[in-house]
Amino acid sequence: MNFDACISLDPTDDAVPLYKQIYNSIRDAILDGALESGTRLPASRALAEQLGISRMTVVNAYDQLLGEGYLEGKHGSGTYVASHLPEEFLRVQVRKSSAVKTVSRSRRLAFSDYGKKLARYSERIAHHHSASIVVPFQHSLVAAEEFPFDLWAKINQKHLRFSSRRLGGYGDAAGFGPLRKAIAHHLRSSRGVRCEDEQVIVTAGTQQAVFLIANLLLARDDKVWLEDPCHLGTSDVMATVEAKVSHVPVDDEGFNIEKAKRDRRPARMVYVTPSRQFPLGMTMSLQRRLSLLEWANDNEAWVIEDDYDSEFRYSGRPLPALQGLDRADRVLYVGTFSKTVFPGLRIGCLVVPPDLIDVFIAARALNDLHAPITDQMVLADFIVEGHFEHHVRRMRTLYRGRQAVLVDQAAKHLGGFLDVGPSDAGMHLTGWLPKGVDDREVSTRVAEHGLRAAPVSRYTNRKLERGGLLLGYTAFNEKQINAAVRKLAKIAEVEFNF
Amino acid sequence: MNFDACISLDPTDDAVPLYKQIYNSIRDAILDGALESGTRLPASRALAEQLGISRMTVVNAYDQLLGEGYLEGKHGSGTYVASHLPEEFLRVQVRKSSAVKTVSRSRRLAFSDYGKKLARYSERIAHHHSASIVVPFQHSLVAAEEFPFDLWAKINQKHLRFSSRRLGGYGDAAGFGPLRKAIAHHLRSSRGVRCEDEQVIVTAGTQQAVFLIANLLLARDDKVWLEDPCHLGTSDVMATVEAKVSHVPVDDEGFNIEKAKRDRRPARMVYVTPSRQFPLGMTMSLQRRLSLLEWANDNEAWVIEDDYDSEFRYSGRPLPALQGLDRADRVLYVGTFSKTVFPGLRIGCLVVPPDLIDVFIAARALNDLHAPITDQMVLADFIVEGHFEHHVRRMRTLYRGRQAVLVDQAAKHLGGFLDVGPSDAGMHLTGWLPKGVDDREVSTRVAEHGLRAAPVSRYTNRKLERGGLLLGYTAFNEKQINAAVRKLAKIAEVEFNF
Repeated sequence: MNFDACISLDPTDDAVPLYKQIYNSIRDAILDGALESGTRLPASRALAEQLGISRMTVVNAYDQLLGEGYLEGKHGSGTYVASHLPEEFLRVQVRKSSAVKTVSRSRRLAFSDYGKKLARYSERIAHHHSASIVVPFQHSLVAAEEFPFDLWAKINQKHLRFSSRRLGGYGDAAGFGPLRKAIAHHLRSSRGVRCEDEQVIVTAGTQQAVFLIANLLLARDDKVWLEDPCHLGTSDVMATVEAKVSHVPVDDEGFNIEKAKRDRRPARMVYVTPSRQFPLGMTMSLQRRLSLLEWANDNEAWVIEDDYDSEFRYSGRPLPALQGLDRADRVLYVGTFSKTVFPGLRIGCLVVPPDLIDVFIAARALNDLHAPITDQMVLADFIVEGHFEHHVRRMRTLYRGRQAVLVDQAAKHLGGFLDVGPSDAGMHLTGWLPKGVDDREVSTRVAEHGLRAAPVSRYTNRKLERGGLLLGYTAFNEKQINAAVRKLAKIAEVEFNF
Repeated sequence: MNFDACISLDPTDDAVPLYKQIYNSIRDAILDGALESGTRLPASRALAEQLGISRMTVVNAYDQLLGEGYLEGKHGSGTYVASHLPEEFLRVQVRKSSAVKTVSRSRRLAFSDYGKKLARYSERIAHHHSASIVVPFQHSLVAAEEFPFDLWAKINQKHLRFSSRRLGGYGDAAGFGPLRKAIAHHLRSSRGVRCEDEQVIVTAGTQQAVFLIANLLLARDDKVWLEDPCHLGTSDVMATVEAKVSHVPVDDEGFNIEKAKRDRRPARMVYVTPSRQFPLGMTMSLQRRLSLLEWANDNEAWVIEDDYDSEFRYSGRPLPALQGLDRADRVLYVGTFSKTVFPGLRIGCLVVPPDLIDVFIAARALNDLHAPITDQMVLADFIVEGHFEHHVRRMRTLYRGRQAVLVDQAAKHLGGFLDVGPSDAGMHLTGWLPKGVDDREVSTRVAEHGLRAAPVSRYTNRKLERGGLLLGYTAFNEKQINAAVRKLAKIAEVEFNF
């Protein structure tokens, strides 16, 4: 073959040095079968002259090809394409080389059962878990501009400077010791959680906690009861493991254990948000809590308690965690710092019964070893030095005020279209639409106008009597909330004739 | 019952305020059945006097108990234990309350199949994945004292200050866009990886990449070929999923695909470390690489390429990644920043074929949503601004020097006991022991003297002809290496008569 033809050079390409371009060209020609085994290459001097480049460049390219086994140098008799490259492979290359993407796009893939489900749901999952767009009324955001990032950076710098020895190696799968201790203390004193420090496992957030729980404790065909409507991170995990999911509608007292016991086949696990139901916001009554624990004990079932935003209670004392009532070690308590610190941190915690500590630590180790060390160090100091509590207190006041603005503005401008009542806790309100107005439709229209308001029906498979919108207010100041409510009113008027 | 008896106060306990102590005492008495439904509580004034504390303290405790539904106030007729608490639950409590730990410790637990395996292996996994002890000759550590942490902290501070809006929300499951782009560019130009930016998924490190791959692509009873000896993070994952593992001994050319094809039942997946076998250090030959890819293509099998420390090549050019030779999209390329930046960062990457992008992004989302945002921002800048390449170059020189010191000192002081040859790459050397000396035994003795040197036999199930020790040198300066080698010589003399 014509050797020159296989060399493609672009001297204007700054990203790839010339010797590498030659190397690439020759390698590709060999792999594509264009240069056959045993072919003699031109002498480096001759090729350099022909290409109008320095001889060293060619020598460099040949050297690398020799080093990697594509070429063989026979002393005194020049350079050849290596003879021992497997023929079959080279032929395969010829067949495939120009159609990689097409081949890849159209082939049938062999997945695990889990992989098959994920592949089927991947679009839906991507939609549920895309990056936040920080515009009103996106929920589950924090007021990041109020976070003491300078202080955080300072603590971070201190640890980077003085803990480098520790940072040179790997950390504990269960989490950084002082952070586990700080979390345990916080949960005992603020949330009434009953635990030893050792029961606290640092997670990458609620999602990982739920993922590990489902993976470890749900066998094929085990039944899981979920709240309806339900947090999507959880319902998506449960839909893709091998469990059988049953959705149990919540009422004013939260998860309805009596209804579940009466109407559903017995479950191995139940997921609840007792402090504040997500997304509807009710609190689980004491009687329901006790009934749930009694049922769990009688049936050797597990209760996942997702305590995601209990710190933001604006009136009355926060109800202690369900876990604190559990004397039979059936509750797995899931906490997060996404709401109290910031979501991008990716740190949460899981409190497990004593006999599950080891298996959960092992599960975290095999999943991803451990949480980033500096982030854990900084968070530990942030809690121990009192900044955490101080910040949460400040945010509680701020968020209460922002909620009041939203309620006030909604009453003034959205009456008849969106029924927005106050709540004594949480980070969003639910605004209810008139009967017959489709909340998904409204949510789509709202998004077209640059706002975000998730429809309640996204969180349930049931047909709702009335549709609703989640209205997050924590990340937006008075002016932004005012403007957004007016915009919403305009959308209601123009698009829905209200 | 005597009401006083159920109240236990400790005025010297600073951690729990008095009102909470009263609250706890009464709540526990109710839950334990000591205070029955309908029991009338003493008036707050009377109880306060009796306990010698302020009345407000008692009122606070009563208020919380009323709020949570433990007590009921009948207007004008005092405060009572609530009547509607489920009787059965209370009785259960009495039975269990004093024996939580014992009950928990001895009960039979219902796990998933995965959970059962993890429970069986949890001690072993904890042992394999415990926090690093930074003493010679611990391997896989970085020279953290040489890392530009001040620069890192500065970049971090910049992002904390100016990106707060983004930090208030959640990020992309696939990773922070500019980081994916930076990694893709780096892998194309330095490692010969063939990929578009979109094929790069940011992981929490190699462990998570392998975990997700195994979960998604291995169905029940699928066969996996592992290198023997093998990286433990991988062999532990493979031992706990439902795959069937087969270990294939490596030789001088790395993973022996010919042997595997000849002697083993066909596999769905193979895990290899072609750039530098872990832990033995050989490079996979070009012929083996091509054969492996040919086999993968013919059998629709997956190849995991773990490219963990390829940046540290001290002589010759680094061999490009196996992935760059793959024209049939069978390779999943796994990279990490644990060796080039620092392990505590917990960031790595996974490059997948185009038709697997969506399912892997979904898998990361359901596993733990996404990597911490600030860490990703800092790493992106660190790479784009050239600090990464500069640091790797510096470390290459440093590590080469440290290896030379180790080889030199070992030759002088360990001759006959530990055979330590140089290597043109990597972060540790393998020192071979005399025949008949048990490397686990030596490793244990060495640990008793405050050093660490993992035995090669930890990474294999085979009986080795000669035992060996992994000698990490990258995190220790000349003085430390000298001292440690002398100590090792002393141990050899005293404990093993060399």
